[in-house]
Amino acid sequence: MELLDILRSPLCFLQSRLPTIPHLDVLTAEQDWWKTEGVAISGTIDRGGTPWVRMFDRWGKRIDEILYPREYQSMLRKGYRSGVVWRALEENSLIPTYLLMYTISFYDPGVCCPYTVSLGTAVPLAKYGSAEAQARFLPELLRKDDSVWQGATWMTEIGGGSDLGAAVSTIARPAGDGWRLTGDKYFASNAAAELAVAAARPEGASPGVRGLAVFLVPRYCKDGSLNYFIRRLKDKIATRSVPTGEVELRDSEAYLLGAADAGIYLILEVLNLSRVANSVVSVALAQRAMADALAYAECRTAFGKRIVDLPLLRRQFEDRLRTLRSAFALAWESVRLLDQVWMERPPYSDRYHLFRLVAHLAKYWTAECAADTAKWAMEVHGGLGTLAEFGAERWLREAMILAIWEGTPHRQILDGLEVMERKQAHKMLFAQLTEIAPSGELREMESEVQRLLSLPPEQKEAEAEGVFRRLAVCAADQLSRKYPQ
Amino acid sequence: MELLDILRSPLCFLQSRLPTIPHLDVLTAEQDWWKTEGVAISGTIDRGGTPWVRMFDRWGKRIDEILYPREYQSMLRKGYRSGVVWRALEENSLIPTYLLMYTISFYDPGVCCPYTVSLGTAVPLAKYGSAEAQARFLPELLRKDDSVWQGATWMTEIGGGSDLGAAVSTIARPAGDGWRLTGDKYFASNAAAELAVAAARPEGASPGVRGLAVFLVPRYCKDGSLNYFIRRLKDKIATRSVPTGEVELRDSEAYLLGAADAGIYLILEVLNLSRVANSVVSVALAQRAMADALAYAECRTAFGKRIVDLPLLRRQFEDRLRTLRSAFALAWESVRLLDQVWMERPPYSDRYHLFRLVAHLAKYWTAECAADTAKWAMEVHGGLGTLAEFGAERWLREAMILAIWEGTPHRQILDGLEVMERKQAHKMLFAQLTEIAPSGELREMESEVQRLLSLPPEQKEAEAEGVFRRLAVCAADQLSRKYPQ
Amino acid sequence: MELLDILRSPLCFLQSRLPTIPHLDVLTAEQDWWKTEGVAISGTIDRGGTPWVRMFDRWGKRIDEILYPREYQSMLRKGYRSGVVWRALEENSLIPTYLLMYTISFYDPGVCCPYTVSLGTAVPLAKYGSAEAQARFLPELLRKDDSVWQGATWMTEIGGGSDLGAAVSTIARPAGDGWRLTGDKYFASNAAAELAVAAARPEGASPGVRGLAVFLVPRYCKDGSLNYFIRRLKDKIATRSVPTGEVELRDSEAYLLGAADAGIYLILEVLNLSRVANSVVSVALAQRAMADALAYAECRTAFGKRIVDLPLLRRQFEDRLRTLRSAFALAWESVRLLDQVWMERPPYSDRYHLFRLVAHLAKYWTAECAADTAKWAMEVHGGLGTLAEFGAERWLREAMILAIWEGTPHRQILDGLEVMERKQAHKMLFAQLTEIAPSGELREMESEVQRLLSLPPEQKEAEAEGVFRRLAVCAADQLSRKYPQ
Amino acid sequence: MELLDILRSPLCFLQSRLPTIPHLDVLTAEQDWWKTEGVAISGTIDRGGTPWVRMFDRWGKRIDEILYPREYQSMLRKGYRSGVVWRALEENSLIPTYLLMYTISFYDPGVCCPYTVSLGTAVPLAKYGSAEAQARFLPELLRKDDSVWQGATWMTEIGGGSDLGAAVSTIARPAGDGWRLTGDKYFASNAAAELAVAAARPEGASPGVRGLAVFLVPRYCKDGSLNYFIRRLKDKIATRSVPTGEVELRDSEAYLLGAADAGIYLILEVLNLSRVANSVVSVALAQRAMADALAYAECRTAFGKRIVDLPLLRRQFEDRLRTLRSAFALAWESVRLLDQVWMERPPYSDRYHLFRLVAHLAKYWTAECAADTAKWAMEVHGGLGTLAEFGAERWLREAMILAIWEGTPHRQILDGLEVMERKQAHKMLFAQLTEIAPSGELREMESEVQRLLSLPPEQKEAEAEGVFRRLAVCAADQLSRKYPQ
Repeated sequence: MELLDILRSPLCFLQSRLPTIPHLDVLTAEQDWWKTEGVAISGTIDRGGTPWVRMFDRWGKRIDEILYPREYQSMLRKGYRSGVVWRALEENSLIPTYLLMYTISFYDPGVCCPYTVSLGTAVPLAKYGSAEAQARFLPELLRKDDSVWQGATWMTEIGGGSDLGAAVSTIARPAGDGWRLTGDKYFASNAAAELAVAAARPEGASPGVRGLAVFLVPRYCKDGSLNYFIRRLKDKIATRSVPTGEVELRDSEAYLLGAADAGIYLILEVLNLSRVANSVVSVALAQRAMADALAYAECRTAFGKRIVDLPLLRRQFEDRLRTLRSAFALAWESVRLLDQVWMERPPYSDRYHLFRLVAHLAKYWTAECAADTAKWAMEVHGGLGTLAEFGAERWLREAMILAIWEGTPHRQILDGLEVMERKQAHKMLFAQLTEIAPSGELREMESEVQRLLSLPPEQKEAEAEGVFRRLAVCAADQLSRKYPQ
Repeated sequence: MELLDILRSPLCFLQSRLPTIPHLDVLTAEQDWWKTEGVAISGTIDRGGTPWVRMFDRWGKRIDEILYPREYQSMLRKGYRSGVVWRALEENSLIPTYLLMYTISFYDPGVCCPYTVSLGTAVPLAKYGSAEAQARFLPELLRKDDSVWQGATWMTEIGGGSDLGAAVSTIARPAGDGWRLTGDKYFASNAAAELAVAAARPEGASPGVRGLAVFLVPRYCKDGSLNYFIRRLKDKIATRSVPTGEVELRDSEAYLLGAADAGIYLILEVLNLSRVANSVVSVALAQRAMADALAYAECRTAFGKRIVDLPLLRRQFEDRLRTLRSAFALAWESVRLLDQVWMERPPYSDRYHLFRLVAHLAKYWTAECAADTAKWAMEVHGGLGTLAEFGAERWLREAMILAIWEGTPHRQILDGLEVMERKQAHKMLFAQLTEIAPSGELREMESEVQRLLSLPPEQKEAEAEGVFRRLAVCAADQLSRKYPQ
Repeated sequence: MELLDILRSPLCFLQSRLPTIPHLDVLTAEQDWWKTEGVAISGTIDRGGTPWVRMFDRWGKRIDEILYPREYQSMLRKGYRSGVVWRALEENSLIPTYLLMYTISFYDPGVCCPYTVSLGTAVPLAKYGSAEAQARFLPELLRKDDSVWQGATWMTEIGGGSDLGAAVSTIARPAGDGWRLTGDKYFASNAAAELAVAAARPEGASPGVRGLAVFLVPRYCKDGSLNYFIRRLKDKIATRSVPTGEVELRDSEAYLLGAADAGIYLILEVLNLSRVANSVVSVALAQRAMADALAYAECRTAFGKRIVDLPLLRRQFEDRLRTLRSAFALAWESVRLLDQVWMERPPYSDRYHLFRLVAHLAKYWTAECAADTAKWAMEVHGGLGTLAEFGAERWLREAMILAIWEGTPHRQILDGLEVMERKQAHKMLFAQLTEIAPSGELREMESEVQRLLSLPPEQKEAEAEGVFRRLAVCAADQLSRKYPQ
Repeated sequence: MELLDILRSPLCFLQSRLPTIPHLDVLTAEQDWWKTEGVAISGTIDRGGTPWVRMFDRWGKRIDEILYPREYQSMLRKGYRSGVVWRALEENSLIPTYLLMYTISFYDPGVCCPYTVSLGTAVPLAKYGSAEAQARFLPELLRKDDSVWQGATWMTEIGGGSDLGAAVSTIARPAGDGWRLTGDKYFASNAAAELAVAAARPEGASPGVRGLAVFLVPRYCKDGSLNYFIRRLKDKIATRSVPTGEVELRDSEAYLLGAADAGIYLILEVLNLSRVANSVVSVALAQRAMADALAYAECRTAFGKRIVDLPLLRRQFEDRLRTLRSAFALAWESVRLLDQVWMERPPYSDRYHLFRLVAHLAKYWTAECAADTAKWAMEVHGGLGTLAEFGAERWLREAMILAIWEGTPHRQILDGLEVMERKQAHKMLFAQLTEIAPSGELREMESEVQRLLSLPPEQKEAEAEGVFRRLAVCAADQLSRKYPQ
């Protein structure tokens, strides 16, 4: 059973993969807190369902207060204090952030969403914000105590999240030295954030993605009143530790980030951060589901044995551990590459395009693994897996959210296709993979990709899924050869 | 879009598959009722969560009343009236029953559980009950109005559902002209049934499955008091239209079915009925998830098109329709075979063993299809798929229950392995499949099975999953060639 | 126990009070339906809590659909078909309406709210609507089948419900041949009504109540889109069978009722209808709580007796029955008077002012009785009274809503004071009461009222409560002498 | 507004009443914690509803774990640490305990139930436990850290809580050096307590209350397995911070307290502690409801004024403050007297009987005040009072529980009557009241009591309520003259 022991904690697994782990003491403390305190809080939040919004106070003043249990705040603030956001900008590296996210999301995958969108607010502010905006907002986002501001990234509107060029109808109008935004955001994660990044179209700008700009929107106006309104919270099937709402922008004070016609680049840069987070969280979730299945299978007996000792189940554990390692290798490659390119601005380097392809493959494949592993872990629990009481079913709910937000499989496949077609990103990928160890399998995979790319457009899109899936598996397996076997 | 039109209703799909459909008028009426009335009721029941049990009345009398919405009863009784149970015994055929189940479970997969366990009570009573028990109980179970009794099949105890030989510790003691049962049933579907079939071990019987017997347990004692107690209802993630509870048998009046040492055969015969039901329901669920995805994709637009017209999604619909048809062919083969052998008693014919293999393949594979299709349908809905509000997530919850109850994948694989080893059931299967059309693929598959069977026991079990899965796909594809392409 | 038998059903009690009951067959049918069907539905609705609003459909269209159980609709439509609204206008009498309300609210006090506000829409439309509005809307509100439109009366805004002059900030602007309304209604009963009556202030009108006008607002615009929006439903402690929401009027199409400067009269006329309804429902609720307590006390034993036979409890039943009869007499007097004056328009007759005083006394006192009786009925149930399971606590929750909406006790006292001061309504009241039978007690009560009215303003208001309460009890007791003892 | 300022915090009010307050620093710290932390936790617990019981762990072992939010534990443990139990036995005085309870229950009336029943376990153990039982259990109950054991007092069975002589059917059988209990407890407060006090009837003992004995029942058997089972938690309308369940004793290990035929005395001594607690909590709840109403009325405006400045409402505040002071005086008298007699054993002193009468009057009257004040506070909030969102309605739910548990009004009246008849306790009471200040009113009240006591039995009971109520008011008002006016 020694082989499976690394499943039991996130740091155990990370240490089995990575040669060195910066800030190991911070991660250890984080893990310890979750083991002794966080696990129970997270379970309570999940069982408790979507929290209420208190829209008005008793005297009729609109307040949009979210009635979370107090212990939710203690859980959430923990990660900010540990540096899930401030370390990135202070240490000029994303590695500590994503290591923290892996550790935390083993225990609660949802809470990493607020962290990710806060990061997705701080980074573009640091890269593109005016000096004034940086001076005013950046220190708030990087505080190391519980008064830290939270961020949010609001792009999606009722018309959908994929085709932003068509869907974003929020209008931005210049007003004094800033802007005013009016429109409705439909999937607004971290709905009560103190500072949000929002996509909008400046009045008169061109239609389509080229006419989009990105703005900072604080929760409160300069005069102290609410600057946006939470219409309601979404009743999501999981990630109950992040309040996702519908947000109304009504002449809301806003500050432009970057150039008014370069919004789409900023949006994609923000998405880079969250897709990589999604991949890291997906792997951690898969590990967690396996850890729970293992704990169960070690104590449950059937036919005179612990079920973990039954040959079929043991084989499944071994196979799935291998898959977990491959998925981690792919996810971590996306981390490693992003860490090299996250400060780039357009026009981007080739490495940036390589990163994009790897990020699409990783987002797609790690989420598939997470969902499949969570489903299997439920089955290991037998009938108990179908009960709300034991939480085995929670990981599948959480995994399905990971599979969908930050772009469904369709989105990853089609955007991956595009970066291969336009930027030849696959050539860089295969060069890198071949460096690890050349193989006939790799050459075959490359030909298959080439064949796909040479098809007429409609057919290319129609047949993309199978090729993309195989490419993801192939890259993951190959990358995992870089780590201990 | 004509191709996909058959997805829109269960009868549409059934008619595209089967040359003749008995009692089409009954099925049409059933489908019409569900379209106009049932859909909304089913959604309400699902949203409403697990109902309360009123354990005592206000005057302290134990009553164990389940507080379902009244309209739940109207929904449930509908199917009984239409003949989901009585037709089987009156027409001496299971075909009408499973056709009704397909039709109904497109709209509510859960409600078919009460029907199945009621059938699983009536059939062994009709086959093995004493004349007195038949005279007393059978007419109650076969009534054609709303006063019909419901049945239930209670085998599983806290120790687990797979290894019944070890897990069943309910004790049966002779008492007068009947028996008395004492023990706890842990997953008692249809917990308030008027008559249950329960496994128990007669005092002094041998350990293991050979010492099990099967009994009838009515809800009320002869003196009118409760004959068993509902400790609580399980908070399941789906199938909210069936109350699954923990049941306490306490010196409960019981009537032996068949011989006291032949219980395991009766248990397996009951499982035959429910595994086939599970397969039929799984296919209907997969169709339903596709129908919902289709309805959505026809109205949602992105990049200037209805998303159903985007090449990647269209291809997925076509591929999945093909898979749906194969899965149906496999499920229906299990129906067809069961219809031939359901009245057999031990010792069984070869055809019975062939049925068992097909039933394991079908239970396993159709549930996989259902879960995979439901997951995909959520993804088609994008972010909406993660919201409780729109019900797209319901089908995945329902599918996970189908994957687990009546035996998890592990169980189907290992029991399928056993019937191939001991009864050479695979040879009969390949003979039948070859009759449809011989092929090299079939021959290869048969060799692969032979290779597996010749391995040493531990290894055989360890490697069984892949072979079993490929066998299921191969059989399903081959069987689907019997139906319109 | 014969004395208490009249508590067991609403008609039994009504027949013990009133010499003739029009449409007894209709009422009997209504009562029978509730006994056999409605009771269970009403319990389910109450346990189910506040329903969801589906704000957008899956394709992003705003729909504001309330996801009620289907059986809620069947329950609700029943009363409309029986004539709770159409009979009033067809038979030119409110008696059948309030008799139906008494009968229904014994089983579900909440459902009478939709009826009342529908009546409160139909009546001002019939009295003050333009010929065109009447032709278009009145037939819809008076249909005798399930397609009947529902009405609603929306006055209250976030600033409060008592001081409408200050609180109503909804603005009405002329537009074409109609008006457009913009503002937020904060306690909008029957939030999905097809046609609402709403208070608003025409642009430029004077502040205060004199500047208010009343408008009809249909649910859908002429072009078929939503004409108002449901921001959310309120999570009320009871009356779950009425969806009370926050409603946003946004340039909503509207039709003026009556003169633009006479809105306050129409508002008060609408309130007349609902306050009388509130009184009738309060008495029925008190009867229901007593009926439940009686049923319990007849079966529960302690100290060797049925507890209903213990002297203290028996005395309480007898005393409370007496109070119930008095409360009914007062409530019914408000019905009788309203039936004489409901078609009056300003300037009003003396009888109208007498009605207003009686209505304030009845609204206040019947709600007090309802709450006190419900509290006592909980105590009769002992520990069971504190459990959600048995529903004994429901009547107190319902009663507290009756005590508050349509004006809290403070409101009734102060408005009652005003109609005595300004219109000398108490003199008419004492004249009527003395006609029944003169007494020293009456004379004393009249002097007490006179003393109060002669106090300086601040002191008069400060001391009003005690006098008003005693006047209500005195009037109720005296009026009950008109009915069988 | 200075007058009303003492309503704002529990200590403020206590300091306005009592000349000296022991351990003021402890109480101040307690109050501060509740203001800053506890209020939000308590609100969350109340909104969260009844917690789940996890009856079995994932491996089938019965564990009966209550899934409370973690922060519930922190809230609960706080009071134990502050000394709500250990101070009573260490300082040999109940005053610190009840002062803590007043302070805490202003913020959460429910959490004082666990404290009370823990006290009700420790005290009889200290008075009547064997040396061995004391050595084993008492230190656990008196720990000053979070490992403190909780107690529980389980008397009531399904047959009811008033007539224990008839209702207790739990049987105690001698077993080794201890006993074994078998039976069902129906309202088992603090259901997961480490140590419970339970009433049972030794096999062969006489029927009626004289045959009852009282036992200690630990949660775990000596061998570590569960010693009793939680069948389910009750879904109570309030006091969600105490898990009230149905408990099954099944041959549960138990230890006799006191003599086997003196159980009824111990039961009543335990009830003394909890009835006095109930009185103290009721007054604190009434204060809290007033404090909330005040906070609201100071910010809400109508007719151009803060509503607290409207004469009618201001008068109500003043009148209710007077009533609150009287109710406090009565409750505190019961504390003072209990503090003098709590260590008495039968046969009891006259002072003990005086205490009993005062305790009945206080339990009855303070609960009436609490319910009436909570109802009024809802009305002050207008429509907001009917919404779950703002919590104004919570105090009425809590008050109704206070009115019912520890004996309904009926119980207090009849038991109060008995102690007057049998022990002439009213004579001692009037002597004490007259000492404060003689008055004609007191003499009249005494005659009225005498008249009642001289009636024939049936009539005496029938007419008891009015006299008892007036006696309570009279005693409360008179006692309040001892405190600052």
